[in-house]
Amino acid sequence: MVTGMVHPMPGHDSRCLSLVPGAPASVFNFAASPGPLPLSVRERLLEAMPGLLQMHHRSVAFVELAERLQAKLRELLEVPADYRVLFLQGGATAQFAMVPLNLCRGQGAADYLHTGYWSGRALAEAQQLGMAAQRAADGRALAFHAIPPSDTWQLRADAAYVYYTANETVDGVEFRHTPQLTTAPLVADMSSCLLSRRMEVHRHGLIFAGAQKNMGLPGLTVVLVREALLQGALPGTPSLYDYRVQDQQRPAYNTPVVPAWYTAELMLDWVVEQGGLQAMESSNCSKAETVYAALDTGGLYANAVAPACRSRVNIVFDLVVPALLPLFLEQAHHAGLQGLAGHRSRGGCRAALYNALPEAGALALADFLADFQRRHG
Amino acid sequence: MVTGMVHPMPGHDSRCLSLVPGAPASVFNFAASPGPLPLSVRERLLEAMPGLLQMHHRSVAFVELAERLQAKLRELLEVPADYRVLFLQGGATAQFAMVPLNLCRGQGAADYLHTGYWSGRALAEAQQLGMAAQRAADGRALAFHAIPPSDTWQLRADAAYVYYTANETVDGVEFRHTPQLTTAPLVADMSSCLLSRRMEVHRHGLIFAGAQKNMGLPGLTVVLVREALLQGALPGTPSLYDYRVQDQQRPAYNTPVVPAWYTAELMLDWVVEQGGLQAMESSNCSKAETVYAALDTGGLYANAVAPACRSRVNIVFDLVVPALLPLFLEQAHHAGLQGLAGHRSRGGCRAALYNALPEAGALALADFLADFQRRHG
Repeated sequence: MVTGMVHPMPGHDSRCLSLVPGAPASVFNFAASPGPLPLSVRERLLEAMPGLLQMHHRSVAFVELAERLQAKLRELLEVPADYRVLFLQGGATAQFAMVPLNLCRGQGAADYLHTGYWSGRALAEAQQLGMAAQRAADGRALAFHAIPPSDTWQLRADAAYVYYTANETVDGVEFRHTPQLTTAPLVADMSSCLLSRRMEVHRHGLIFAGAQKNMGLPGLTVVLVREALLQGALPGTPSLYDYRVQDQQRPAYNTPVVPAWYTAELMLDWVVEQGGLQAMESSNCSKAETVYAALDTGGLYANAVAPACRSRVNIVFDLVVPALLPLFLEQAHHAGLQGLAGHRSRGGCRAALYNALPEAGALALADFLADFQRRHG
Repeated sequence: MVTGMVHPMPGHDSRCLSLVPGAPASVFNFAASPGPLPLSVRERLLEAMPGLLQMHHRSVAFVELAERLQAKLRELLEVPADYRVLFLQGGATAQFAMVPLNLCRGQGAADYLHTGYWSGRALAEAQQLGMAAQRAADGRALAFHAIPPSDTWQLRADAAYVYYTANETVDGVEFRHTPQLTTAPLVADMSSCLLSRRMEVHRHGLIFAGAQKNMGLPGLTVVLVREALLQGALPGTPSLYDYRVQDQQRPAYNTPVVPAWYTAELMLDWVVEQGGLQAMESSNCSKAETVYAALDTGGLYANAVAPACRSRVNIVFDLVVPALLPLFLEQAHHAGLQGLAGHRSRGGCRAALYNALPEAGALALADFLADFQRRHG
């Protein structure tokens, strides 16, 4: 397995000074999951960890943490008052089932914009649950190198919702704007891009995101959902998969992963310290431009994604001489650029540029891309 | 909320020396969840934490961790070769749904031994999923102060399984022996007692346990299941709730809570260092006897559970003068005996005596019980 080449090291961080002779001065983590933690967040988390390991989820301390987390998330994302904020478990994979089990009530039909690996997984899960979920947009014909134009989408008037994956981490395709819809509620998987830019929560019926990219650690999933959609799940749905049950059992229906909640709060604080979502967006665009510019120069690297759909979060690319891939990954690793192997389903290369990856990391990657090309192009 | 009185402290542990003037010399944690970590485990965990926070679940390091964890658990619990060991998420609450969704295939009927709060929750979940789950034993008539005798159980010949909760943490009732059945597969919730004593895995069809009691941290659930029962879940079951899907996607179907896996390995190593399950059982019996003896002396404390069913894991008791409860909990807390408030559904007092609670903790509690009775009895 290619990603197995990337070993995590104790003390590993998106930027940490190495004391090992001959090792690179800085180490940057480009892995898609889990995302890196800013150094200040990691330090505060490790300091609090002894207490977090023993914190009971019915304690005053945890209830207060949950309330702060919700308030901060609402403020940063400008969540309208008629939305509920749920903190769940199970990651995006659980949401692939929860969305249809809760939103298809009364209407079996759901429309999916199939733009890559993860929207395909979501669609398949809805179908295996017996829903009339259809591919309203089919990116397969474009080899997932572009998002089908919105005027080709086959949306049904009676759809319970329209589903899209805001950023496809495996394919490197991103919706740059919220899809313009006036009919069914819009459901977005924002696992990899929540907090990476300003977004229009009010134009969605439901947004979900696993926390392990820009909000810290695995074990926490955020769901923002318009109250009117909390009608209760279909009969036969496990209690944990019923948004309404979860909403009624605050702060957590069953034992949560407390350190993930605490880390999410630290990550929100950090985003505010950096200047908020506008500053994140500006920095992330700059990082992506730096890396794409290096990939587009010369001819050793290939990125087939249409420019208008290129992800600013996960840059997917290949070497035009595939035999060079192992050497590329090995030399990058030794240069302190870790986690660049592509998703196991696709191979090639991938650079995740999450919030915590500093601009210096993007510059270091661009330098390495140019240098490797000089030596092997 | 009563349990809110018990604040976790940074550096809190089942036994840690306090440096605060006037504070108790030792602090013991009797909370039911999460269980305490042995000091050596906590130290090793905190040391490894920086690397664990960034460990990818497709990395070689994680795959090896998963293999070691499985091998060690198999050896310690003497898991027969024809059983699969699954490491999941969602805790016991998810298992309440997964068991019927996977084991009711072809046969709707399931028999539940209703002996307290948690088996009641499991039964209710099976019923809300539409299964013909019945109360084969009804402990309600006994106010959950005893397990109905096995010759009164109404077992059905066509039941897909017989379900029991090996230890009821809220009610303080424990099965001292594996129920004797020769018909349907036996399913056990061992969340609070796995690793606390020797057990007969081979006499069960399926055993599950959340890790946060004797195996470390929330975010990990262990399932031991006989291969023949992995027939696939009922149609319409979320993929994450299908044991067969989980079994086919190793080491983890979706992003796991890596620190919980690592901690589970440390906890297994620690049990071996202590002398294995026989030593755990001996120590746990001794701890329970110490506390029950103190409760039974005098007359200030009441424990209504029939002696043959008394839990060695969670000792539930009340003060015969209920008005003394707040004072009791406050003075216990100041004496370093923390987490003694009962479950929020029941109130009163509860002392969890998990593996990591040292015998000195049980002795300290017994001393306090005697002292409090002298002063207020």
